[in-house]
Amino acid sequence: MTTRPGLFISFEGIDGSGKSTQARLLAERLRGAGRDVVLTREPGGSPGAEEIRALVLRGDPDRWSAETELLLFTAARRDHLERTIRPALDRGAIVICDRFADSTRMYQGLSRGNLRAAVDTLHALMIGVEPDLTLLIDMDPQAALARAKARATAEERFEDFGLPLQERMRAGFLALARDYPDRMRVIDGAHPLLSVAHDIDTTLAEHL
Amino acid sequence: MTTRPGLFISFEGIDGSGKSTQARLLAERLRGAGRDVVLTREPGGSPGAEEIRALVLRGDPDRWSAETELLLFTAARRDHLERTIRPALDRGAIVICDRFADSTRMYQGLSRGNLRAAVDTLHALMIGVEPDLTLLIDMDPQAALARAKARATAEERFEDFGLPLQERMRAGFLALARDYPDRMRVIDGAHPLLSVAHDIDTTLAEHL
Repeated sequence: MTTRPGLFISFEGIDGSGKSTQARLLAERLRGAGRDVVLTREPGGSPGAEEIRALVLRGDPDRWSAETELLLFTAARRDHLERTIRPALDRGAIVICDRFADSTRMYQGLSRGNLRAAVDTLHALMIGVEPDLTLLIDMDPQAALARAKARATAEERFEDFGLPLQERMRAGFLALARDYPDRMRVIDGAHPLLSVAHDIDTTLAEHL
Repeated sequence: MTTRPGLFISFEGIDGSGKSTQARLLAERLRGAGRDVVLTREPGGSPGAEEIRALVLRGDPDRWSAETELLLFTAARRDHLERTIRPALDRGAIVICDRFADSTRMYQGLSRGNLRAAVDTLHALMIGVEPDLTLLIDMDPQAALARAKARATAEERFEDFGLPLQERMRAGFLALARDYPDRMRVIDGAHPLLSVAHDIDTTLAEHL
């Protein structure tokens, strides 16, 4: 898919799906196997991008329009790409990213006005990179919501959604998996932790 | 040119050209004539945009790439447009803006890698508004530089350019005036303050 020496893997999924845990566990397994792994996340993932993340997330939820927020997140992604992802890929590392552009496509396209066309144009213009493999951890929203609520912090205001919206988000991610069949794989997140991790290893081996 | 009830005037020019002073003086004259005037500036001009401005301008000059900076300034402009400019125009006010998109076209297109095509695509996608009239205060860079140095503050790091770059900027602005003949007017900034103000009044009357 690309000529870059490293490997770029993203994790996507609704909040509480276990994607962050699975991203961390995969990083640990690959490091255990002697691989150079960079585990990162969005929004954020570089000092500048983390500052932009903080600017977006603090204060009144309505302080930024969906369009302004999209521009800020794209700025953060550009910085993250330049400062963290690209240098790691160039030296041959495996980059594991907890959320990437698919989250923007889903959230900005679905939940706060339909900006999907703008998201795609901005991505093509200013980012231009897709993961080699995207693992969508799919899960029943009711179960995921229970998990998410148990560990929500004040900072995570934009993840504070009710069940109907979680259902739309799950459907939005599954639609993206149909849009990008070459790089996106759906993993059943309802299984026990180690079983999901095993499915991820199998999928990764098949994909590469 | 537009069907909006208000009037949108921007001032452009290299640093030290006197554009900010002339923008303020024009606002005072129009207010004295009983008009509803909103005097604003970029980058900034709304609480959110001022925060983005502060984020861009603080720290190491190389902390953001030209592309990330372009995205941040576009985010700031979108917020400024939504929160300050558009509401003022909708109620019939005259908006006077010290720098607008032409500054981005000139700076990002000329001085830090040629991003002019990206600037124009981003503008069409996320901003979409041009001033009704843009007054380019043109001035010899050597004279302008002397003025700018006399009042520079630590915050204005991206305006700290040498004479050769000021020459390129002047040429860049004059090229923009040729690109946008319908809305851009060149004002000779070398004349005394009140003479320039008189030229602005004449140009404004002719244009409307």
